Amino acid sequence: MFISAEGVEGCGKTTILKMIYEKLLKEGYKVLLAREPGGVKISEQIRNIILNKENTDLDNRSEALLFAASRRQLLVEKIYPALNNGYIVLCDRFVDSSLAYQGGGKGLGVENVLNINLFATNNTLPNLTLLFDIDPSLGLERIRENKNREVNRLDLERLDFYNKVRNTFLDLSKKYSNRYYVLDASKSIDEVFNEAYKKVIEVINGNN
Amino acid sequence: MFISAEGVEGCGKTTILKMIYEKLLKEGYKVLLAREPGGVKISEQIRNIILNKENTDLDNRSEALLFAASRRQLLVEKIYPALNNGYIVLCDRFVDSSLAYQGGGKGLGVENVLNINLFATNNTLPNLTLLFDIDPSLGLERIRENKNREVNRLDLERLDFYNKVRNTFLDLSKKYSNRYYVLDASKSIDEVFNEAYKKVIEVINGNN
Repeated sequence: MFISAEGVEGCGKTTILKMIYEKLLKEGYKVLLAREPGGVKISEQIRNIILNKENTDLDNRSEALLFAASRRQLLVEKIYPALNNGYIVLCDRFVDSSLAYQGGGKGLGVENVLNINLFATNNTLPNLTLLFDIDPSLGLERIRENKNREVNRLDLERLDFYNKVRNTFLDLSKKYSNRYYVLDASKSIDEVFNEAYKKVIEVINGNN
Repeated sequence: MFISAEGVEGCGKTTILKMIYEKLLKEGYKVLLAREPGGVKISEQIRNIILNKENTDLDNRSEALLFAASRRQLLVEKIYPALNNGYIVLCDRFVDSSLAYQGGGKGLGVENVLNINLFATNNTLPNLTLLFDIDPSLGLERIRENKNREVNRLDLERLDFYNKVRNTFLDLSKKYSNRYYVLDASKSIDEVFNEAYKKVIEVINGNN
């Protein structure tokens, strides 16, 4: 059972995924909590290229290909072995993040980015994708509160970008309604967690 | 005008491409001779991951994605600017090497590898692809003569692999007959050079 969590910055998915992970563990399930690059050596080398501040010339298409390559290694080295050993795999971001950020946000086209990612995953997609949907201005507000700083021009530019990302996620949730489950992430952490956990258990029990 | 040279190891393409480059320069053409990673910083970082001997877990699909990302950067940083400035670009290996080595040789499928490369190049393909066709056993023989060593088990394994690569190149030359020109690279360097140069001039003059 392969479950991914998606959403824009400040949507709470990382916190809630960890709560789901711990509750599943306590209930006796075998669970792997993963996030890219996931401690996989080659994936980390690839991420270093993407995140290197000196690589200002990194092209958007190159970046999308590098994310796909990094994802492939995580899949082969960690996710497939865990699935083959009966683990529930919870992954903080997966293919859909590339579709929303590179495909929608950066304008490379969702279908184009999907194609290179289906090559990377050899058509593996999550059984369930939890979308923690939130207005990006609220998500950024949460992050700002944590970091205690003012709004600046870059934030506003980011807001336009994140609105595109959010809308792409919502489009994907309609296109892939069989695997997507949309949560209203503006609610309290506990409310969102309870709803998400209920859905995860349903899917694990084959009652979705 | 974008021209690529392809072929298995020992086919002589690098030597002959350099001869073409020098003759074109002498004739007054503006020419760029490129080969991946081409001194492009990000491409070199990517190649370091591919070539790193400690990365024994590098998956074939990851490798193909990394080659595509590296190629993208060379295209954006060097090849497009040269083409836009009226240069003839001669490139030692390009997309077709991935199709033949990863798609055919390693069995990922030519169409699959083509798809990620068309994403990388945004559908840019060479105007002319010179295929220096040679029986891989003869190509390996040439390399062995240069290095002065015996045949070993790895060479024989490689021979099987290179036969697949050669056959994929030949299939591609039929599929893309509009841009491919096949040379018999078992002939002498001078013979192959003369035929290749003649073809290049024809294409440059629009008489192909």
